[in-house]
Amino acid sequence: MHDTFRHGGDIYGYSQPVLDFSANLNPMGFPAGIPQAILDSLAQGEHYPDPFCRQLIQALSHHEQVSPEWIVCGNGAADLIYRFVWAIKPKQALLLAPCFSEYEQALKTVGARSVHYALEADQHFSLTEQILTALTPDLDCFVLCNPNNPTGLLIEPELLRAILEASAEAGILVILDECFLDLTDRPEPYSGKSLLEQFPNLFLLKAFTKTYAMAGLRLGYGICSDLALLQAVQSCGQPWPVSSIAQAAGIRALQDSNYLPKSRRLIHTEREFLKEQLCSRNLLLWDSQANFLFFQAWPNLEQELRSHGIMIRSCHNYPGLDPTYYRIAVRPRTENQKLIQAMKQIGGNHASNSP
Amino acid sequence: MHDTFRHGGDIYGYSQPVLDFSANLNPMGFPAGIPQAILDSLAQGEHYPDPFCRQLIQALSHHEQVSPEWIVCGNGAADLIYRFVWAIKPKQALLLAPCFSEYEQALKTVGARSVHYALEADQHFSLTEQILTALTPDLDCFVLCNPNNPTGLLIEPELLRAILEASAEAGILVILDECFLDLTDRPEPYSGKSLLEQFPNLFLLKAFTKTYAMAGLRLGYGICSDLALLQAVQSCGQPWPVSSIAQAAGIRALQDSNYLPKSRRLIHTEREFLKEQLCSRNLLLWDSQANFLFFQAWPNLEQELRSHGIMIRSCHNYPGLDPTYYRIAVRPRTENQKLIQAMKQIGGNHASNSP
Repeated sequence: MHDTFRHGGDIYGYSQPVLDFSANLNPMGFPAGIPQAILDSLAQGEHYPDPFCRQLIQALSHHEQVSPEWIVCGNGAADLIYRFVWAIKPKQALLLAPCFSEYEQALKTVGARSVHYALEADQHFSLTEQILTALTPDLDCFVLCNPNNPTGLLIEPELLRAILEASAEAGILVILDECFLDLTDRPEPYSGKSLLEQFPNLFLLKAFTKTYAMAGLRLGYGICSDLALLQAVQSCGQPWPVSSIAQAAGIRALQDSNYLPKSRRLIHTEREFLKEQLCSRNLLLWDSQANFLFFQAWPNLEQELRSHGIMIRSCHNYPGLDPTYYRIAVRPRTENQKLIQAMKQIGGNHASNSP
Repeated sequence: MHDTFRHGGDIYGYSQPVLDFSANLNPMGFPAGIPQAILDSLAQGEHYPDPFCRQLIQALSHHEQVSPEWIVCGNGAADLIYRFVWAIKPKQALLLAPCFSEYEQALKTVGARSVHYALEADQHFSLTEQILTALTPDLDCFVLCNPNNPTGLLIEPELLRAILEASAEAGILVILDECFLDLTDRPEPYSGKSLLEQFPNLFLLKAFTKTYAMAGLRLGYGICSDLALLQAVQSCGQPWPVSSIAQAAGIRALQDSNYLPKSRRLIHTEREFLKEQLCSRNLLLWDSQANFLFFQAWPNLEQELRSHGIMIRSCHNYPGLDPTYYRIAVRPRTENQKLIQAMKQIGGNHASNSP
């Protein structure tokens, strides 16, 4: 069962410490006050957590500038993917290919048919307005990641609005995964948040996991203006999905107003550093705007880096991709340098082995 | 949405501190080493948790003396209830009435029909061999709590075996909820653990929540000898249900070999103290063997105690019960005395108000 794990970040199968470029977490690590907030919350750790995450939702409402009624919290964004799917039990869903694979996995558990809309390699896997013709009334739901995973490409705001309009007309619920958006340089113009009121068919998904590097604590949330849908999402799963520790850590993270701007500056600098370094190695590299980079190289690079104690994400199991595609997280400079150094060594060997 | 909460333990709707007798947690509080184990685990908190809970499952395998392959972990036992139901998608399930309500809620989300087997008030809601006639092949699954919640009554080992035999013959999966069993005086003879190998139709459910008073951390596990069923339970939900903090806390809790025996002694003493005190108030009291007590009193007792800053669990929303039934947790002596004191005051008023 362990061999078939579909995602990055499984560092636990290794006996040696590894540098993990396979999971896309904020390279800042979590905000400084988190350990103390967790210790303070342990006084409550014996009790059941607040099933309604009252304080956390108040803090999120303030942070996101949306009504607290529009927010539902989950045990990581992945928990909400399953709850959402169980709540609406779609017969047929449209997914982009390539895209984050957990959606298809969740859709399988309700017997839904997943239709893949293939992003074209010769269009750099970017989303164009051709997608609008695919939004037909036989679909119940459409999954969209912004920026997309693994490419890191953003959806233009005009296109996003057109997608929501076409979906509303065709009776399609749109789950818009913005789990990485807050780590891009300028999230606001790209976010679907301002469209929530107009489009109750829009369910926005966000996560502390990546944004605040709290993957181990499990905390995500959804925002939607359709209260009946939110209630269904809340009901499709246990009443206490979010631990008291995750609630306390989330509240504390939102109090640190410097953390996100600093994170964006660090990610911008390091992403551009990595782009420059990878370009100079003659790899086919996408112009990711996110905290991760997508590129094409030779097969076996993942295994070769593993022998250097470095994990990257092979994208061979994304629909539409083959074993020459890879994704790496943007990490702090010292780690990025080690990655580039290892790739230079490996690439050097490759060059001398090539015809 | 908050008004309809179905369970005890929701202390967060109160502005004043409350004594919580409504959630059935080990009155010892969690084992002493937990805060340090959590702090130590924070170094990993940035990473995704181990999706396969490898170390925790090793520790559980040793603790429970079952194969690690038979164990699946979840975000509290409640998470596993939903995963189990989603994995088997039963058409029809048999539940006892009264019994823990979350099973019916989970069954609803897959459109299953819940059939209630009414435990009779004039038989003190105890389970007898009459249940065997109800185990018919039209059922897909049967939910059983041992000890039962809210009564605290244990199922005799001979009856449990007969139930499993009849269920196996009728093709019924049995989910046996032993979440409170480890806090009874002598769990071993009553546990279904020794029957797992013989009955692959048995899915045992356990929780750190109650046993180690870690409700806020969310950690439960299932044990079953049917590996295909375990794999399905694991797949019906997100890949990272258990936080790294809960995994670390669980491992640490299992290392404290004195904790459970001490807990059982404390609970035994306090349960008998509460029984004696409640009996002397002329309440109809069940002979619970668990860390909670079930009794019948007058309506409004819950609200009356709330004005004393004490939460108890009204059982009015258990199928088969009415607003005169209550459940209280066995707490430490000082808290138990405050409860009894408050009930004396309230009961005194009642007596003088009665005809």
